Amino acid sequence: MTQRIHLDQLPRTVELLHGSDGGSELRYIDQRKLPGELVFERTGDWRQVVDAIETLAVRGAPALGVAGAAALALWACNEGATQASLCGCSEASGRFREALSSVAHAVSIARPTAVNLAWGVAQLVSQADDALRSGLQPWEVADGLFDRVKELEAADEAANRAIGACGAALLPNNARVLTHCNAGSLATVFYGTALGVVYAAAEKGGIARVYADETRPVGQGARLTVWELSRAGIPVTLICDNMAASLMSRGEVDAVVVGADRIAANGDAANKIGTLGVAILAQHYGIPFYVAAPSSTVDLSLETGAYIPIEERSATEVLPCSIAGVEVWNPAFDVTPAKLISHIVTERGAFRPSELRAGIS
Amino acid sequence: MTQRIHLDQLPRTVELLHGSDGGSELRYIDQRKLPGELVFERTGDWRQVVDAIETLAVRGAPALGVAGAAALALWACNEGATQASLCGCSEASGRFREALSSVAHAVSIARPTAVNLAWGVAQLVSQADDALRSGLQPWEVADGLFDRVKELEAADEAANRAIGACGAALLPNNARVLTHCNAGSLATVFYGTALGVVYAAAEKGGIARVYADETRPVGQGARLTVWELSRAGIPVTLICDNMAASLMSRGEVDAVVVGADRIAANGDAANKIGTLGVAILAQHYGIPFYVAAPSSTVDLSLETGAYIPIEERSATEVLPCSIAGVEVWNPAFDVTPAKLISHIVTERGAFRPSELRAGIS
Repeated sequence: MTQRIHLDQLPRTVELLHGSDGGSELRYIDQRKLPGELVFERTGDWRQVVDAIETLAVRGAPALGVAGAAALALWACNEGATQASLCGCSEASGRFREALSSVAHAVSIARPTAVNLAWGVAQLVSQADDALRSGLQPWEVADGLFDRVKELEAADEAANRAIGACGAALLPNNARVLTHCNAGSLATVFYGTALGVVYAAAEKGGIARVYADETRPVGQGARLTVWELSRAGIPVTLICDNMAASLMSRGEVDAVVVGADRIAANGDAANKIGTLGVAILAQHYGIPFYVAAPSSTVDLSLETGAYIPIEERSATEVLPCSIAGVEVWNPAFDVTPAKLISHIVTERGAFRPSELRAGIS
Repeated sequence: MTQRIHLDQLPRTVELLHGSDGGSELRYIDQRKLPGELVFERTGDWRQVVDAIETLAVRGAPALGVAGAAALALWACNEGATQASLCGCSEASGRFREALSSVAHAVSIARPTAVNLAWGVAQLVSQADDALRSGLQPWEVADGLFDRVKELEAADEAANRAIGACGAALLPNNARVLTHCNAGSLATVFYGTALGVVYAAAEKGGIARVYADETRPVGQGARLTVWELSRAGIPVTLICDNMAASLMSRGEVDAVVVGADRIAANGDAANKIGTLGVAILAQHYGIPFYVAAPSSTVDLSLETGAYIPIEERSATEVLPCSIAGVEVWNPAFDVTPAKLISHIVTERGAFRPSELRAGIS
């Protein structure tokens, strides 16, 4: 049975636009306000985009890639090109390039674990370098960066749809899928990676139900995944993270599908804290465990997951009011070793971890 | 290194007292208000005790055993004996016994999973039957029930101290222990079961640190375990439930110690939801997994854990504001199969699950 789902109910997460005053603006959903309110913010200031990334208003590895690139384009269009035009022509390009580099660094380090953020920024820096080398003026370079972000937006959706089709082929009809965190449309420009697999599977052979881990401490499952799936018309049940084992022991889960923030060359995958535990449970119960992510998430410069930097966040995310004598440990990600992963599903195909390097090269 | 710990900072959780008006009263901590406030309630009304049990103001399997017995004693002392004395002598005992039975049923079903609740109530019903059969009057029976509850209180602490000594012998010096939920002094009359092991180990060979799972959705770890341990002077770090795997993967956990709400004859143990997952992770990383509970938690009438009733609680515990189209699954307990348990630590000794039946019989 295929399902009628309502992708038209899913808003675009980040979108670079021409502003009314001739500058550029990024429109983004402030995901901290979901599921209570769907609030779109618009800003022309790249610093506000960095703040949105740091405070998780914009999150999700693929969305961070585009948002990071967009921050750089906002700087170039709204500040960099103007400032460069105010100085002498002979210095304009050099100053533009120098300032671009500094902004690129500030954006790249806003969050450390998802490689897509640095990847998105690097895409734009590389294009700017090429353009400057070919003699284009800063304002022309800025226009090019704007266009490149629009390409990245389109490429993100296209990659997600390809990931979805690829992953759907791995699921039985009417599958019951467990997911952790939100690797949905809200984590990308549109459509999602892990939930892209769900949407594609629903249209292909049906999805009986998605079980969404609430994903403490920030609650991306409880706030975002259930909101998105219910809006799209997919049956969804919210569970606490610690209920997954019990659910699996009852035979209620056919497959686990999650996203990733960075995948090492050997297939070790960093994803939201708690993913490692779900992978161990899946292995224990013989349930396939799929990681769905665009190839831009793969960091071939790292041999294994041991080299992936793990962001640690504030104690107040876990314990709003501190208790004297009580410490808090709050790592935002963990690393699932390749041996626990059945397939890594990318836009270029689904690979066993050992085949990943060759598959995406 | 042994540690100086401050057990004098731990309040008694439930305590039956003679009230100022000649009746009986139960003094209990309203644990819903911790860690913000330490509030003691006093009531002579058995119905309020049932309400306290249903709403988790009083919780923890051993504490429920005593609180359930105390509810019955309150009824006998404050209502039953008086009502019986108002009717003719020939009917007094029969009516008392009939009403006792009805109250006992109401108390026993307040929560289904912890066997200790029904066990505590059964202890008092059995004593009342003996007393009535020997010709005692209802007011004399009521006095006897009061005394029996005081014995259960003392026996609880003694059992916990014996469990502690027994479990401490299994831990290395300066152990780093992970626990789930609260099987501490707050879950018993005093001292605790899993945390009894921690307190005894601290005094014997030192405890380097306890990692406390927050234990969604009710937060017994985040609210109770960290409060109790920090008060007692044990180093404690709070983690979200989904962080345990990452912690274990880093080699930071020497042993897992948890409590239990009901243990079947084969050693399968029901405990707070999430325990099963922790046990699977412990097995994956080769970490010993200990269940600490008084022998009254063992239900020899059940061959395996498959027969243990699992309470499902309200969706609002997980998701305070419902979202259209989103279902919630909220089981309060899960069952850890015996094969994942290293030892079951009781006041009569620490047993491998296969030795449990013989060990406690």
